[in-house]
Amino acid sequence: MQTKPSIESRDQLRDALPEAVREAIREKRWTGPTVGMARGYIQANLAIVPERNAFDFLRFCLRNPKPCPLVEVLDPGDPVPRQSAPSGDVRTDLSRYRVFRDGRLAEEVSDLRALWRKDHVAFLMGCSVSFDQAMLDGGIDLRHLQSGTGRIAVYESGIACRPAGIFHGNMIVSMRPIPRPLLVRAIEITSQYPIAHGAPVHVGDGAEIGIDDMAKVHSGRFNEVGPGEVPVFWGCGVTPQAIAAASGVPEMITHATGHLFATDLRISAHRTGL
Amino acid sequence: MQTKPSIESRDQLRDALPEAVREAIREKRWTGPTVGMARGYIQANLAIVPERNAFDFLRFCLRNPKPCPLVEVLDPGDPVPRQSAPSGDVRTDLSRYRVFRDGRLAEEVSDLRALWRKDHVAFLMGCSVSFDQAMLDGGIDLRHLQSGTGRIAVYESGIACRPAGIFHGNMIVSMRPIPRPLLVRAIEITSQYPIAHGAPVHVGDGAEIGIDDMAKVHSGRFNEVGPGEVPVFWGCGVTPQAIAAASGVPEMITHATGHLFATDLRISAHRTGL
Repeated sequence: MQTKPSIESRDQLRDALPEAVREAIREKRWTGPTVGMARGYIQANLAIVPERNAFDFLRFCLRNPKPCPLVEVLDPGDPVPRQSAPSGDVRTDLSRYRVFRDGRLAEEVSDLRALWRKDHVAFLMGCSVSFDQAMLDGGIDLRHLQSGTGRIAVYESGIACRPAGIFHGNMIVSMRPIPRPLLVRAIEITSQYPIAHGAPVHVGDGAEIGIDDMAKVHSGRFNEVGPGEVPVFWGCGVTPQAIAAASGVPEMITHATGHLFATDLRISAHRTGL
Repeated sequence: MQTKPSIESRDQLRDALPEAVREAIREKRWTGPTVGMARGYIQANLAIVPERNAFDFLRFCLRNPKPCPLVEVLDPGDPVPRQSAPSGDVRTDLSRYRVFRDGRLAEEVSDLRALWRKDHVAFLMGCSVSFDQAMLDGGIDLRHLQSGTGRIAVYESGIACRPAGIFHGNMIVSMRPIPRPLLVRAIEITSQYPIAHGAPVHVGDGAEIGIDDMAKVHSGRFNEVGPGEVPVFWGCGVTPQAIAAASGVPEMITHATGHLFATDLRISAHRTGL
């Protein structure tokens, strides 16, 4: 039997600093999802587009801050997030990437160095990992974290994003079943984290935002909405992938779901009021 | 004696809706500054650059939100702020514009229609008019509004902006003398309006941020700092003009100081906590 490469455990990385998580991934000691790691720090979704599409995509993000809350936009050709993780590198510090060509998933890779070009522009966007933790801290149990899979129900909604240049398409949303007495609290807490998708985009029947069959997820895993619970929908970081598909953009590279970039930014420093 | 064209009074426009202010300017019924008009609504600074420089300038704004808080970025060639003022037009709805060529002020005009091109990209940025009103409402008297000139002391600081592409230079700041017992309150209030430059960038001796002679303003009018008062410095919307000069950008068109664009956005809807 072959010796396995040394892999750090999820538990070890949970309380690690973001830099340690990035290093473990860069050195292939950790190759799995990053949900639950480097607690207290903002993890980010990634989208990379060629410079000729970058101004359009940046306007798209600004006009759709619920699904695409900007953390940092890197300079063309620069893989280092100078503000949010100066010791990081977006080519190596995520464990899995998805490459879309002409809007279709072409391949998944674990390293971007071979694909990186000097006209690539990387966008880091906040993700729901940050406010899930805030909701847990606020006494709101979350089914997808309780059940241990860490996978959430993700749907394509009928809510049209505001278009910008070549980019258009519907908003992807994530759904969490929230006990009715905790609904206000869940909205109150998530409203304070606009950098992590912020307040919900819809509360109640999914059919009202074009989701007719709740069992038919776009990705992730369906979570039953129990009696006394209400389905609550938030903007989701999978939106850029759907936008790539709808727009047929020649090239977009994203993180793979759950395989995020750990920034050095503390979540608490990016909390705002209503 | 010739009949004067009908000019609406400042008092009439003070409580007018932003749309009425924009119309009065568009129809040349009002040709002066807009400070104090359409109260309760966000007035915006304007910067226009050619599309080839727009992605650089947008990253510059994102990296320097204190002097350049984005309200809306328009599509190339589109003079209509679709989100913040759908009935507006940035070519006609400001009463005075400054045209910079190769970083130098080339001319001032009262209408942009003759200069507008389809590769022009307009940026609207929040301005301090919004939080001045919030400070007044919070019981903080402001010298430049009390004295009736409405002109504030503006300085070039030694604080370097974070560069982006071709854009670099020092931050322009505005200074308000604040009575020491009200300092905390002034910081508390302005912190809640990141869309209007937000919290101060410096409190106290200007020399600490490179302003050696407080009587030597970059523009505006010096306000004496009285006994028991402390000078407080905020990021200022004149910064893009200084950046144009420092960077030697071939073309940038801005509002003239005090001649702002009245948006339909309510200030109160853009208030946040700390």
